Amino acid sequence: MMVATDIATRVWNHTFKLDPIVRSLLDTDFYKLLMLQMVRGLHPETQVTFKLINRTTSVRLAEVIDEAELRAQLDYARSLRLTKREMIWLAGNSFYGTKQIFLPEFLDWFEDFRLPEYRLDVVDGQFELTFSGPWTHTMMWEIPALAIVNELRSRAALRHAKRFELDVIYARAKAKMWEKVEQLQKLPNLRISDFGTRRRHSFLWQRWCVEALKEGLGDRFIGTSNVLLAMEADLEAIGTNAHELPMVLAALAEGDEALKASPYAVLEEWQRYYGGNLLVVLPDTFGTTSFLKSAPRWIADWTGFRPDSAPPIEGGEEIIAWWERMGIDPKEKLLVFSDGLDSDTIEEAYRHFEGRVRMSFGWGTNLTNDFRGVAPEPIPGLDPISLVCKVANADGRPAVKLSDNAAKATGEADEVERYRRVFGAPSYAERAVRV
Amino acid sequence: MMVATDIATRVWNHTFKLDPIVRSLLDTDFYKLLMLQMVRGLHPETQVTFKLINRTTSVRLAEVIDEAELRAQLDYARSLRLTKREMIWLAGNSFYGTKQIFLPEFLDWFEDFRLPEYRLDVVDGQFELTFSGPWTHTMMWEIPALAIVNELRSRAALRHAKRFELDVIYARAKAKMWEKVEQLQKLPNLRISDFGTRRRHSFLWQRWCVEALKEGLGDRFIGTSNVLLAMEADLEAIGTNAHELPMVLAALAEGDEALKASPYAVLEEWQRYYGGNLLVVLPDTFGTTSFLKSAPRWIADWTGFRPDSAPPIEGGEEIIAWWERMGIDPKEKLLVFSDGLDSDTIEEAYRHFEGRVRMSFGWGTNLTNDFRGVAPEPIPGLDPISLVCKVANADGRPAVKLSDNAAKATGEADEVERYRRVFGAPSYAERAVRV
Repeated sequence: MMVATDIATRVWNHTFKLDPIVRSLLDTDFYKLLMLQMVRGLHPETQVTFKLINRTTSVRLAEVIDEAELRAQLDYARSLRLTKREMIWLAGNSFYGTKQIFLPEFLDWFEDFRLPEYRLDVVDGQFELTFSGPWTHTMMWEIPALAIVNELRSRAALRHAKRFELDVIYARAKAKMWEKVEQLQKLPNLRISDFGTRRRHSFLWQRWCVEALKEGLGDRFIGTSNVLLAMEADLEAIGTNAHELPMVLAALAEGDEALKASPYAVLEEWQRYYGGNLLVVLPDTFGTTSFLKSAPRWIADWTGFRPDSAPPIEGGEEIIAWWERMGIDPKEKLLVFSDGLDSDTIEEAYRHFEGRVRMSFGWGTNLTNDFRGVAPEPIPGLDPISLVCKVANADGRPAVKLSDNAAKATGEADEVERYRRVFGAPSYAERAVRV
Repeated sequence: MMVATDIATRVWNHTFKLDPIVRSLLDTDFYKLLMLQMVRGLHPETQVTFKLINRTTSVRLAEVIDEAELRAQLDYARSLRLTKREMIWLAGNSFYGTKQIFLPEFLDWFEDFRLPEYRLDVVDGQFELTFSGPWTHTMMWEIPALAIVNELRSRAALRHAKRFELDVIYARAKAKMWEKVEQLQKLPNLRISDFGTRRRHSFLWQRWCVEALKEGLGDRFIGTSNVLLAMEADLEAIGTNAHELPMVLAALAEGDEALKASPYAVLEEWQRYYGGNLLVVLPDTFGTTSFLKSAPRWIADWTGFRPDSAPPIEGGEEIIAWWERMGIDPKEKLLVFSDGLDSDTIEEAYRHFEGRVRMSFGWGTNLTNDFRGVAPEPIPGLDPISLVCKVANADGRPAVKLSDNAAKATGEADEVERYRRVFGAPSYAERAVRV
């Protein structure tokens, strides 16, 4: 029996010059678009530098990933423009139940958007990748840059895998993923979404994982942060706001008093643009305990909180206690968990808080990049690394993040010191940042 | 981004009239060819009826499998002829280290071989499928008939599975299979082969399993009983002889004395045709204990035994004890285990006999048809059933198999009674026949 090989497909495959990782400007997190609209409205002149930081220093990325390949991928991403159907979808779709969340004037401007220049150097085995320019442009590099570096690393890890080995790897990764889905099927009121774009193994793998959650969890899978996948798979786009907002506003604040007020100023700005379920507080940029201690009463009227670096149980309890002090019934409120989740931690938090508060889970790295133990021979390059792309400075002033986990703090040492003086020491023990 | 669909492939898929299960006369067990050559030489006129028996009576096959589909597959198999390259391979290859194991005169005859007619009825929800005619022809139906019925059953079980469900099912089946490979990798001197043609989930799945063993076990995977796969994957074809030989010779024997001698007469016939590593005794047709009690000394000079229905440990010990009584060092001898194996029982037998005897394992149903627990929603139709195709009679005389497991006995009740009187009662407790 002859094996029928589709020659056109085969030739297409073996003449690949570039297999682009990011093929659409919508292959990014939804909250970037929400933040972009606000930043463009309120901070159109602010200059912000984003910088790639590999916290897993043992992995010398520049020795794993070819610099020319990285440049080719970044350059390809810079060539992208919004397509007609993408613009139609952004304009015509409802997000979080709201029509025309993106104003026509913003969309007119966004239609011509392209990613700005980047600067890439290799220093001591690591890439120094920075994006400098107007905040309205540099902020849009974070997600594609991370997705590109992570996927180039996966590709490098699999470069020498044999055909059969790849078959086993993806079969086992699927089996592993499906075990997690089956574990989560036991949680009847679960609300979970994909937050895994930035750390994904690959775009195709993320798409498979999203399909698995859709098939396996039905309505309990509430959507994806990835705008492109939301569009393609007819899912809700999920996400609200990120640390870059308080980090930039804090960096721009004049003096300690203004610095201390900046986390609340961010929220005031946010609610000028958005309402309803988009009113989710991200309290941990400079420590949740400090945030709550000085938080004005009106913040308790927001829909919920996203504890993003505290241990889920303790972090959730701290916020519930604050709501109760504010005279608010937590049952009406929402906790969005999004830090270091996996099916076990999701189940644990779910069972802990069940019936006491509304919950949703934004599942990231362990959703879209859990290849640990699936290769027939261990391939360490498949283990996810802790790679982030953070605000380094705003209008030339250094930016800082403290977080609830001291291991996640970023910024220059003396500035971190100053912020700790203003906001107080971390309330939680330092935890290893696994991914 | 547009999804590129290969239209030719798609149209080919959706216009499938018949997806043949057996596409080659070599898609059968190697021992059938060895036996066929001998039967043709020594018993060319013997008429033998083979009959399909579904021991898993709870599965009403005729309600699961469409009769017309079954006929279409059987008819397709009847249309097959040996191809030129198959004949070249049979003539030019060495089997068990022997060149020209198939004599030119046999191959000339075999070149024109086609499967004979079948008779198919439906009785009480089961198929009555019988093959009557010259032994030289009916014997060749056993393996394709079993493979066809088993694969039609798998297809029926998966008929309503959604695309994503199929993806999960095969991913998990592969993951499950690879776990077994990893378990077996720990056994350094393992010798194992695929014996799973008759009970396979499907041809393509068997091929994947064979590839998995080849990739995962290297030289420890010594080959496959499937002649077609051996040819395609450049593997050794494995197998020697089967119960049909003693069953037919016993049925033809005149009187109890000749009946009692028939299991040894078979071996005398065999060694007129084959030598060396093909001298493997299958002792359990009428009970191993009885066989050994009356076995002539020369049988101890054969390469080994294949205990096929006794519990592996006890069955192996019984044979080792016999070798020792015959003054033979078991270390020089071979035990081929082939009954109800899975990675656990293989490991158990391996560790039990390690260093005391040479061993090899012929892995069947749990290699090529273990889909238990892999479907997102349980699909009972994927569980293997105990389906066999046995000699019912020879030259009009009823055939019997006693085996070392009374649950595997076949034949008419009064004949079974007579055989038990001649050969003695089973030495082993009855065990459930799982697959």
